[in-house]
Amino acid sequence: MKTSEPPKVEVVCVGSELLSGRVDTHTAFLARRLAEASLRLDRGTTVPDALDAVRDAVAAAAARAEVVLVCGGLGPTFDDLTREAVAAAFGRALAYHAPIYAGILRRYGRYGLRVPSNNKRQAFLLGGARALDNPHGSAPGQRLEAPGGRLVYLLPGPPSELYPMFEASVLPELKRRFGRGLQAAARVFRFYGLAEAACDQRLAPVLKAFPQVDFTILADLGLVELHAAARAPRLAAAEALLAKVERRVAAAMGEAYFSREGDSLPEAVGNALMKRGWRLATAESCSGGLLSGALTGIPGSSRWFVGGATTYSNALKTSLLGVSTSLLRKHGAVSEEVVRAMVQGTADRFSTEVSLAVTGIAGPEGGTKTKPVGLVYMAAKAPGRLEVSRKIFPGTREQVRRRAVAHSLSLGLSVLRS
Amino acid sequence: MKTSEPPKVEVVCVGSELLSGRVDTHTAFLARRLAEASLRLDRGTTVPDALDAVRDAVAAAAARAEVVLVCGGLGPTFDDLTREAVAAAFGRALAYHAPIYAGILRRYGRYGLRVPSNNKRQAFLLGGARALDNPHGSAPGQRLEAPGGRLVYLLPGPPSELYPMFEASVLPELKRRFGRGLQAAARVFRFYGLAEAACDQRLAPVLKAFPQVDFTILADLGLVELHAAARAPRLAAAEALLAKVERRVAAAMGEAYFSREGDSLPEAVGNALMKRGWRLATAESCSGGLLSGALTGIPGSSRWFVGGATTYSNALKTSLLGVSTSLLRKHGAVSEEVVRAMVQGTADRFSTEVSLAVTGIAGPEGGTKTKPVGLVYMAAKAPGRLEVSRKIFPGTREQVRRRAVAHSLSLGLSVLRS
Repeated sequence: MKTSEPPKVEVVCVGSELLSGRVDTHTAFLARRLAEASLRLDRGTTVPDALDAVRDAVAAAAARAEVVLVCGGLGPTFDDLTREAVAAAFGRALAYHAPIYAGILRRYGRYGLRVPSNNKRQAFLLGGARALDNPHGSAPGQRLEAPGGRLVYLLPGPPSELYPMFEASVLPELKRRFGRGLQAAARVFRFYGLAEAACDQRLAPVLKAFPQVDFTILADLGLVELHAAARAPRLAAAEALLAKVERRVAAAMGEAYFSREGDSLPEAVGNALMKRGWRLATAESCSGGLLSGALTGIPGSSRWFVGGATTYSNALKTSLLGVSTSLLRKHGAVSEEVVRAMVQGTADRFSTEVSLAVTGIAGPEGGTKTKPVGLVYMAAKAPGRLEVSRKIFPGTREQVRRRAVAHSLSLGLSVLRS
Repeated sequence: MKTSEPPKVEVVCVGSELLSGRVDTHTAFLARRLAEASLRLDRGTTVPDALDAVRDAVAAAAARAEVVLVCGGLGPTFDDLTREAVAAAFGRALAYHAPIYAGILRRYGRYGLRVPSNNKRQAFLLGGARALDNPHGSAPGQRLEAPGGRLVYLLPGPPSELYPMFEASVLPELKRRFGRGLQAAARVFRFYGLAEAACDQRLAPVLKAFPQVDFTILADLGLVELHAAARAPRLAAAEALLAKVERRVAAAMGEAYFSREGDSLPEAVGNALMKRGWRLATAESCSGGLLSGALTGIPGSSRWFVGGATTYSNALKTSLLGVSTSLLRKHGAVSEEVVRAMVQGTADRFSTEVSLAVTGIAGPEGGTKTKPVGLVYMAAKAPGRLEVSRKIFPGTREQVRRRAVAHSLSLGLSVLRS
């Protein structure tokens, strides 16, 4: 099923702000979506809003790649120069299209807005280009064939416009054009509790066993993701191949493989709760609300998440969670005894079957020889089950807090699944 | 004080993962740090772990720019090819340096780790290159002068190694080399409550009045940042110039300008609390803990943050915050009446001078005609002061939640400063 070399794809991001401190998320988005069509990005170039720079970057990309995705610089202001720059790169003229401008006017009218005087610029198309519909903004995208059959797409910069336009007007054509009748299936496998290097090592034989599948490994703060994409003449065959991959992945990764359905950790916790008909509450000290924040990030979490307490002061640990003052005095707020009392008190006070508790020292201050910065106690409780974990997490205050959240969720999953 | 054209600086990011879905944060970090030295990035290029691609990208960058920062690909594994690729780009040999390997061995020994067999590769330097100390990892950086006096830096990919090495070994040399004896001062001004376009418009005359200052505007979810960098023969002069900028900015932006010291919103709230000697507690529904999570992200927040309640269920709003069941029945959980009761109940139950409360519909489900998705009520209470705000925030569940957090913090700031 191994197919011939896929076409080269490059992205050119246009925008001075991307070279002045704004993080580029376009490239990562496009890479992930392309992977699902078994296409890979070969190069990313970021240039400022300068005509020469955009022109040169697009021309160079089109000399190397079969597909060039140009993002940004289609707005109405003087520094939106992508249209002019790409026209110069391929020696095309720009022509005004009255129906496009009429559409822009209608759009502004619908929102009761005055049309900025310079908005006519957005109604110019490159010679030979086709406009791509933009339901979420005024600038249409453009698609043109450059010499040698190269496909060049001009796409808007705002993610709220770029993402839907890419899905609706670009990806289907790329699949048709380069898919050779193949259907693509994609899966995400998620792991927790193993370092990236350890995952790499365990997954290596699996990846080797499926040379016809595209794999990408991503890791962040103890969570590792394996993205897999397969293509076959029929979708069912591509999906069957990924089901085989899944069995091998599950066998290789054991406990670390928590997400059968591509769930994130909070989704996996929510799904496990719903399966049992149980509800959850949280008590947090060093994570300061980020654990309940992660859980309530899941749409519909009100079905299984009741509430949480952020108890930064010892007095609140006592009044809200019923942790005894003598326990706090004797062992300190960051201790196994206190996290046990917190997780029990949370279940009692919030009347839930399941509870999670976190207490630790996120730093950068507050560490001691015996209780260093990064020390975190976490506990998860379900009917008849209790797990307590002590970790010393590396990293900054924010990293310690985020690792504590991920680890607490994995503890929750563990008591829910056992 | 306007100086001649600054040198061109380019970054080349090496890593297949950056073309497979991992977000590149190096470029944004480098851009921000360079701006403080009044240098700007002219182009960013991202290439996979492939020798030809790295070699070509580095050679092309060095043909255009005076300074090339190459990030990533210095690890010990077979796909870490930056050393070989840059050697090929400039026709340099790679030579083994025993003292570097001895340092790597010492480092591993300190952590009780076995040295991977392929780690010797990290002890090879390009001919004519100088090693850059890496206190946070095993791969040293490298600095070499390419033809024409171009400076090329090879830097490690992990941010925990890249950032300190850039600060310690790269930025000082760039300042010395290109600073022509000028000292740089930098300030960040933060605004809340105005759209980016409105900020742009109000700031335009200020930016025009200081052509000798480098400005960058960044915006995210209702927060707008203006970064300003000035250079002068003496630091005091650069700082005096930025003090002038600050007076103009404050006059132009009024209330929207909340951060005199470059504070983030939670920092500004914390500082205002400390000035008064007051303490804060939170009550959250739709933001689900993200508000207390943002506040406790500030080091030392335990001095002024007591705790918070995430009350997702109505029963908890009653039991934890004392919101009456009749009020909840009559007006619904998302209402002005309930947010008033929440903010009062929080101050009472948590015994704090100041309290914040949020209740709303983050979506995507749960909206009605009269209470649509994005509707959020927020309240802030301080002694003798109460502010309540009703907003309909656009965007996804996560965007609505993050906007609610930012707006609640700005309300808190408002009651603290009045």
